[in-house]
Amino acid sequence: MNAVLLLSGGLDSTTVGAIAKSQGFDLYALTVSYGQRHAFELEAARRGATALGVVRHEFLDVNLAQFGGSALTTPTIPVPHGRSEETMGSDIPVTYVPARNTILLSLALAFSETIGAEDIFLGINHVDYSGYPDCRPEFLRAFEALANLATKGGVEGTLKTKIHAPLLHMSKGEIVREGVRLGVDYSLTHTCYDPREDGASCGECDACLLRLAGFREAGVVDPLRYATPLPRD
Amino acid sequence: MNAVLLLSGGLDSTTVGAIAKSQGFDLYALTVSYGQRHAFELEAARRGATALGVVRHEFLDVNLAQFGGSALTTPTIPVPHGRSEETMGSDIPVTYVPARNTILLSLALAFSETIGAEDIFLGINHVDYSGYPDCRPEFLRAFEALANLATKGGVEGTLKTKIHAPLLHMSKGEIVREGVRLGVDYSLTHTCYDPREDGASCGECDACLLRLAGFREAGVVDPLRYATPLPRD
Repeated sequence: MNAVLLLSGGLDSTTVGAIAKSQGFDLYALTVSYGQRHAFELEAARRGATALGVVRHEFLDVNLAQFGGSALTTPTIPVPHGRSEETMGSDIPVTYVPARNTILLSLALAFSETIGAEDIFLGINHVDYSGYPDCRPEFLRAFEALANLATKGGVEGTLKTKIHAPLLHMSKGEIVREGVRLGVDYSLTHTCYDPREDGASCGECDACLLRLAGFREAGVVDPLRYATPLPRD
Repeated sequence: MNAVLLLSGGLDSTTVGAIAKSQGFDLYALTVSYGQRHAFELEAARRGATALGVVRHEFLDVNLAQFGGSALTTPTIPVPHGRSEETMGSDIPVTYVPARNTILLSLALAFSETIGAEDIFLGINHVDYSGYPDCRPEFLRAFEALANLATKGGVEGTLKTKIHAPLLHMSKGEIVREGVRLGVDYSLTHTCYDPREDGASCGECDACLLRLAGFREAGVVDPLRYATPLPRD
């Protein structure tokens, strides 16, 4: 059975790939470059896809930086550092990219229709990213409803699109434990919003802080290289 | 009031722009190049945006041709010529691009959120394109529901996205009459799926046939240049 995997190269999407593979799916990876600040993430996606043994890997450029509105795509908006986990969960952060998951899922939907796949996997997470509107279960249900009205396969009844977000209700620690159980090599992944020029993770942006907390919770050592000193360790 | 206009440069989206402008909106045009076979459509979009006096015009490349699956983006699938209007309405044609309108609306949604606009206009039409699943009213309603779950503005209640498809239930003849009433210069538009190298329209693809029938129905002479002889005239 074919499935599309939205693969960013981060911890979450790489783990989702391992989960989908363990369920017997043949994976068609889709990595979208939407104007993120650095290429480390794309390299991580390439390594991750190879490790997962995907059937096909498409890279697509969609320059959302043209629209602006996010610290992840707009160099003039600084990425926040050193925020507490309470603060992260309570508001919509500047790293939110407008309509990002809607766009990513739309592109995955187009890919899935051309390869005759019903299943789309993505690594969104409601626990750590509760501040992002498009990481909520009700968003996913609405997209699934849309997908089955939007496509030839949906209308003709030959393809029923299902959106799989197996990490949705897992904590970062649970994700790491599940990935380790499935043999994911986390040294291949990239998480940091604000890496140093040599590729070392900053250890202080929201993404790094959540990742490090996840590894701590899982009782596993994060194999990534961090700019020293590591915060709060 | 700001509005995003999905502007392809065709008859429909150009007419929608004139309608939105007549309703007092300040237009932010978005033209997406998704791997169509030719650049005439993009040039028409540029001319149309100038004629409409848009505030800003963004061109975005999203290479859907990578996925394949449509005659509009895959050179090896021939564009059908000379089909009857009954045949056109009864099935999903090979010119259907998988998930096209879902992707276009997602990109328009991102743009609208960054400029603080609630209104998105697009020129889809249910009468002539009943074979396309993503040209149906139920698709639009589902997208609107999704949009208001997907964005920061929707969740915070500061932006309520509305999708406007004023041509949805109009015949091609009614569209032409409305455009002429609003002063649209249809010599600036481009419709043909399969234009000649010099830019002349083929007059035989589904899009040309529908356009020509629309002008006939409206009793207006189409100012475009066609490869001779013109069919069925």
